[in-house]
Amino acid sequence: MPAPNALYAQSGGVTAVINTTARGLIEAVRRHPARLGRLYAGRDGILGVLEERLIDTGRLGAEDLALLGDLPGGVFGSCRYKLRSPEERPELYARLLDVFAAHRIGYFFYNGGGDSQDTAQKVAAYAAARGYPLVVLGIPKTIDNDLPETDCSPGYGSVARYVAVSTWEAARDVASMASSSTRVFILEVMGRHAGWIAAAAGLVHRRAEDPPHLILFPERPFVEETFLAAVRRTVASYGHCVIVASEGVRDKSGRFLAEAGGRDAFGHTQLGGVAPRLSALVQDKLGFKCHAAVADYLQRAARHLASRTDLELARAVGRDAVRYALLGRHAEMVTIERLSDRPYRWRTGTVPLERVANRERLLPEAFIRADGFGITAAARRHLAPFVAGDAPPHTVDGLPPPVRLPLVAVRRRLEPFTAPR
Amino acid sequence: MPAPNALYAQSGGVTAVINTTARGLIEAVRRHPARLGRLYAGRDGILGVLEERLIDTGRLGAEDLALLGDLPGGVFGSCRYKLRSPEERPELYARLLDVFAAHRIGYFFYNGGGDSQDTAQKVAAYAAARGYPLVVLGIPKTIDNDLPETDCSPGYGSVARYVAVSTWEAARDVASMASSSTRVFILEVMGRHAGWIAAAAGLVHRRAEDPPHLILFPERPFVEETFLAAVRRTVASYGHCVIVASEGVRDKSGRFLAEAGGRDAFGHTQLGGVAPRLSALVQDKLGFKCHAAVADYLQRAARHLASRTDLELARAVGRDAVRYALLGRHAEMVTIERLSDRPYRWRTGTVPLERVANRERLLPEAFIRADGFGITAAARRHLAPFVAGDAPPHTVDGLPPPVRLPLVAVRRRLEPFTAPR
Repeated sequence: MPAPNALYAQSGGVTAVINTTARGLIEAVRRHPARLGRLYAGRDGILGVLEERLIDTGRLGAEDLALLGDLPGGVFGSCRYKLRSPEERPELYARLLDVFAAHRIGYFFYNGGGDSQDTAQKVAAYAAARGYPLVVLGIPKTIDNDLPETDCSPGYGSVARYVAVSTWEAARDVASMASSSTRVFILEVMGRHAGWIAAAAGLVHRRAEDPPHLILFPERPFVEETFLAAVRRTVASYGHCVIVASEGVRDKSGRFLAEAGGRDAFGHTQLGGVAPRLSALVQDKLGFKCHAAVADYLQRAARHLASRTDLELARAVGRDAVRYALLGRHAEMVTIERLSDRPYRWRTGTVPLERVANRERLLPEAFIRADGFGITAAARRHLAPFVAGDAPPHTVDGLPPPVRLPLVAVRRRLEPFTAPR
Repeated sequence: MPAPNALYAQSGGVTAVINTTARGLIEAVRRHPARLGRLYAGRDGILGVLEERLIDTGRLGAEDLALLGDLPGGVFGSCRYKLRSPEERPELYARLLDVFAAHRIGYFFYNGGGDSQDTAQKVAAYAAARGYPLVVLGIPKTIDNDLPETDCSPGYGSVARYVAVSTWEAARDVASMASSSTRVFILEVMGRHAGWIAAAAGLVHRRAEDPPHLILFPERPFVEETFLAAVRRTVASYGHCVIVASEGVRDKSGRFLAEAGGRDAFGHTQLGGVAPRLSALVQDKLGFKCHAAVADYLQRAARHLASRTDLELARAVGRDAVRYALLGRHAEMVTIERLSDRPYRWRTGTVPLERVANRERLLPEAFIRADGFGITAAARRHLAPFVAGDAPPHTVDGLPPPVRLPLVAVRRRLEPFTAPR
């Protein structure tokens, strides 16, 4: 009897380094042909699994795999799709097992954040209950860095580096023009619930006068008067003020600042945006000329600024997911365990999925400065390793070269099925 | 009699490479001690000259000069300050000559865009009329690339590279999630009057399916129906649509889209923003989930993505400004002359200031695709050299190191003076 096949799928928001995790996993699978057969990837994550849209990773050659490491986004596609419980949607779980059986899948590697680890756990439990032999391993990934039980989540280090470098660069621009132009600059970054991304900007704040002068965390309620007073004080001291604001900043009543909008003069939906809102506030209340940047997907796609550490972690969790699966681990997620801060030493480990599923790790209180507008020395010690190291992607004439990858579909064996959206 | 001193000032919006121009100039001045005495820099551009806030560049050592090349923004400060004509404000011109005389300035190097070249010309004319011996050289700088008579303006190549790379990266992210999440992504870039910056995104559009699918230029009036039809068509063909929009996009009546705002639910000023406006439009009219990024200062400060070509050009115009001054050129601006496209070969030249002052070079018609949403092959040929070459700045643990530069003030010799703001 030939070795069982394996299935890999990406889930949720993509990162600058998730394809490096895929690469690590693919290379590891290939080292064990006697125990692992083909490795398929779900097109668009779990959606492609449900709909039997699978990609045969065996068609990717060594050069293709090396190229994967240079590509942000999810090369096989990912999805935002909440797989409800087997009690609510038994037909979806039955379908998953049908697809697994049709393609002789014995290993399921699911690469995502907290929701995805929950899905992985449900799939594992369902397969066990039906007597289907399936090894399930979760692989961490999220720029939000809010997965518990792991030192960090691959993807975070690169967005952290992007935010720190961009803040530093824009701040030098603002500082050089502030005497006659923009006094206040606001960079809006991701992080709906946890302030990990915003906190990373604090890594370039070495002296009191260094940017960012103010960081706004979702973990701390936004108080307009305190904020405006801090801006006024900073401008008085340094001539300008650089602010990094998490998209998840909320007021005391828990309402997102970004949602305080409404409709514009034309009756169009006024899209949220913390930075434009803060910018209008500063301009109206303090009279300072203000500029705002919204990094949006630029931050999580910025492979050109990915940290080498993050790439190494991303590759390791893919590679070791295979190793742990072959060691008999099951219904666990691969983790990063820190051994020392400086130099940063780490190893992978695993943790039962039930200990990560649907749990969110916020920024610890000890990482937020007493005034609520910056990070502590403990935070710097913890975060600094994640952004370390250059690992520029290959460029041709200064630009990313054209991408041509053999993403070949696996022949379908089942009736068509459309997952409910 | 000792050699006359020289004065350098930066003007207008700063760039990722203007400090490299300063470096080229400082190094060139030092090679001619018999003909050029001290080199001073105006703190905050012409404002610092008027207010006798000068920096002695002689205190910068070789290591400091090398560091200059890694720093975005203007290291001596720049300003947004429109120096009115000598007829309107004779006292300002008289003050400039007082400062020049007090510090024995015989050479004035002014580094800026179209307005600045106009100022340089006025200063030259005024000095001549008063019999003050002054050699004036303009040095080009503007991310907008709208200076005439030069192949490009240093600063442009780096923002062009930033926009092209960022578009490509974010587009890979969007493409990988589009089947269940964001369908349309909009990146707003600078360029109030000219579409050079937006056009650069077109460099990564190699095949029909490649991003950006639509570029919106200030040179072409925005027509809502045509735009929405193009977005709908693109999503139908490729599943997603990536748009790069210049901040200067205007409707048929000439009104900036970014100014179509008003006040929000709280009566606060609704800051403009082409991307949020287009995003609301797409969401309301087409129902596609849409994301928008506003790069703002991030784009012009992105030294980490500066092109090597741009850095070389920036250094050359600084260096050769000194060379031309010593050759007896006066009231001219240094230019870049293209000798060949591929490989890109160039040399510097000069042009009378009167031929550049207050003239704006828009994107040529021949560079805009017939449908108005992309660039032509001629544009690609012209633009490609500017973004070529990696030149990453020095980092420590993945981040820009702390900056400590000896920016030492020159002792004042005149009564205090405050320039009218």
